[in-house]
Amino acid sequence: MNAWATWLAEQRAAREAAGLQRTLRPRQADEDIIDLASNDYLGLSTHPDVCRATADAALTWGAGAGASRLVTGTTTLHADLERELAEFTGHEAALVCSTGYQANLSAVTVLADRHSLIVSDEHVHASLIDAARLSKAAVTVVPHNDVGAVREALADAGDRRAVVLTESVFSVLGDTSPLPELVDACTAANALLVVDEAHGLGVAGEDGRGAVHARGLAGHPHVVVTATLSKSLGALGGAVLGSAALVDQLVNRARPFIFDTGLAPAPTAGALAALRLLRDRQVGPARIHRRGAELAERLDVPRSAGAVLSVPMPSPRAALTAQAEALAAGVRVGCFRPPSVPDGVSRLRITTHIGLDDERWDHALAVLTAAVDRCRT
Amino acid sequence: MNAWATWLAEQRAAREAAGLQRTLRPRQADEDIIDLASNDYLGLSTHPDVCRATADAALTWGAGAGASRLVTGTTTLHADLERELAEFTGHEAALVCSTGYQANLSAVTVLADRHSLIVSDEHVHASLIDAARLSKAAVTVVPHNDVGAVREALADAGDRRAVVLTESVFSVLGDTSPLPELVDACTAANALLVVDEAHGLGVAGEDGRGAVHARGLAGHPHVVVTATLSKSLGALGGAVLGSAALVDQLVNRARPFIFDTGLAPAPTAGALAALRLLRDRQVGPARIHRRGAELAERLDVPRSAGAVLSVPMPSPRAALTAQAEALAAGVRVGCFRPPSVPDGVSRLRITTHIGLDDERWDHALAVLTAAVDRCRT
Repeated sequence: MNAWATWLAEQRAAREAAGLQRTLRPRQADEDIIDLASNDYLGLSTHPDVCRATADAALTWGAGAGASRLVTGTTTLHADLERELAEFTGHEAALVCSTGYQANLSAVTVLADRHSLIVSDEHVHASLIDAARLSKAAVTVVPHNDVGAVREALADAGDRRAVVLTESVFSVLGDTSPLPELVDACTAANALLVVDEAHGLGVAGEDGRGAVHARGLAGHPHVVVTATLSKSLGALGGAVLGSAALVDQLVNRARPFIFDTGLAPAPTAGALAALRLLRDRQVGPARIHRRGAELAERLDVPRSAGAVLSVPMPSPRAALTAQAEALAAGVRVGCFRPPSVPDGVSRLRITTHIGLDDERWDHALAVLTAAVDRCRT
Repeated sequence: MNAWATWLAEQRAAREAAGLQRTLRPRQADEDIIDLASNDYLGLSTHPDVCRATADAALTWGAGAGASRLVTGTTTLHADLERELAEFTGHEAALVCSTGYQANLSAVTVLADRHSLIVSDEHVHASLIDAARLSKAAVTVVPHNDVGAVREALADAGDRRAVVLTESVFSVLGDTSPLPELVDACTAANALLVVDEAHGLGVAGEDGRGAVHARGLAGHPHVVVTATLSKSLGALGGAVLGSAALVDQLVNRARPFIFDTGLAPAPTAGALAALRLLRDRQVGPARIHRRGAELAERLDVPRSAGAVLSVPMPSPRAALTAQAEALAAGVRVGCFRPPSVPDGVSRLRITTHIGLDDERWDHALAVLTAAVDRCRT
């Protein structure tokens, strides 16, 4: 065993001792499990129109984009998706990236550099944290949703370009951010607010146009939005939404965009089909909110503004046990433990989906109430 | 116009003045252009088996993975692809990521941290450079393919874990690295060699098993390989190949893997179908090398070890003109200008594909010879 193998073995032993070892568990195509763990809130990943569009694109265009977007990896599908996504969310332009992670890396590293200041909410997603690191900017982490702290941090910016990072609906806790107040703070300080709508698009606002749109902030000169195509839109990929000048800058300067194979035609077409279902009101988020409220009441936790319900548990092991009990009864929920939680508190993460019929939903409610009650005490 | 809009406008004006402004040009599904720009070297992106598998997966599984790999984003397709990819390339285990970019970010940030030393070839891909930055390790950039400089840099590592970054076939210049000598240097210094086979898999070695396999270095305790599923395999995504212990560490610690939606079922199935075509010798790289040699001779440049031929041009404008002339005659090639070139030299980047019949290939040769000769003088 060389030193690397020894180190890897020690790392694993430490994880096992702490009850934090994780493994991948492949699921079957035909398994009969009620899914309240994925981010496919609207059930669009398996909507017939979305599946058909995805499959057709593979047959028409081939399995891959073939190269980076600037070489030959841009198809008319990408252009259509970018135009319609911008229109739907109220922005001038959009840029599709192959993951939401790389959308965040692209946006932040283009807006901030070693001479900039980034003010980051302490609960933002790993991809925004990594983006801030990659930008080499000075980073001030502020307490969660503390607008006063953001203003204070921005007051120290001096001549530096300053960028504030937040999410519209936070990914693990499911809470929202004070967007108008943050935009005010940014405008006053000439800073830019980057809002990750990964869990807002398709869920928040009219027809799921997102929280930024709902607050009348889409197209605001101090707001940039990032989003994913892999959650409510049911496909794969991410996007940056903002001005045409911003998108132009990204196309020319964002390394995680420029040096990456374009998103494949199949998920591009899938996301586009999903977006059109939302736009044409064939599906919508209203039922998510009704179901989310019902679930929150049954589990005695605060209601969520989005589709993510956070249920704190007394320990990593209690969270794991509740998750296992629910799964044994046919319901899959998420279990987040350190280091995947922003506050160190292990929890169940339950997402409300509208693809389920009422009978399965009621069954899920009963299973979860029992499992959580038993493991919370 | 706020300060951000002014800055974006200035940035664009500077690019335009330097002749470096780039824009996305969407291609049509039915366009009649000979493609010598993409990385779909084996034509597998449009192979009927690959397209069919991609489409079928979308219909069977849905358009997206729904969540991160550790939540519900791992399907049996992912498990099959990982097992067969590891087997094909001669490694114990594989981990599929949603992009090659994130495969590199994952591998490097797990292997190196602020206490480590990274020794990086000056020509490695942007994703490896960004990965090194993100790891916060000390980075020593060494001259291209200079094993002596690598040994010297490693001698300074002291007690630090040291990781050396290279590619088997470099993405822009198309040249190869001295893998056995680099492995020797790493073994002597107890360092780990990370080899990006983005342009080696499917092209180098027996049946396209990659350059690391060809040199008998697959499974070597001081070697980790990264690869993409979006080039010769014609789909989307990336992979890390190494020991089972390494993959376990990635699953538990690699932020760009953990916090990212899993690769969608469609491209996962597409890559798997392409891999099986290679493994079963339904396609193979032999013809790429014959065509590459012919092309190199006609354009009077050194032969390439892979499928990428680099043709230096006297200026960014000469490169652009040659590219435009070839395109006007129906042949698309890549044009790389600063900052996308490792040495500041603008060039055409021409890839050899085996999907073309002889007539189209001969036409492409004639077009390129004329365009390059005219613009090189």
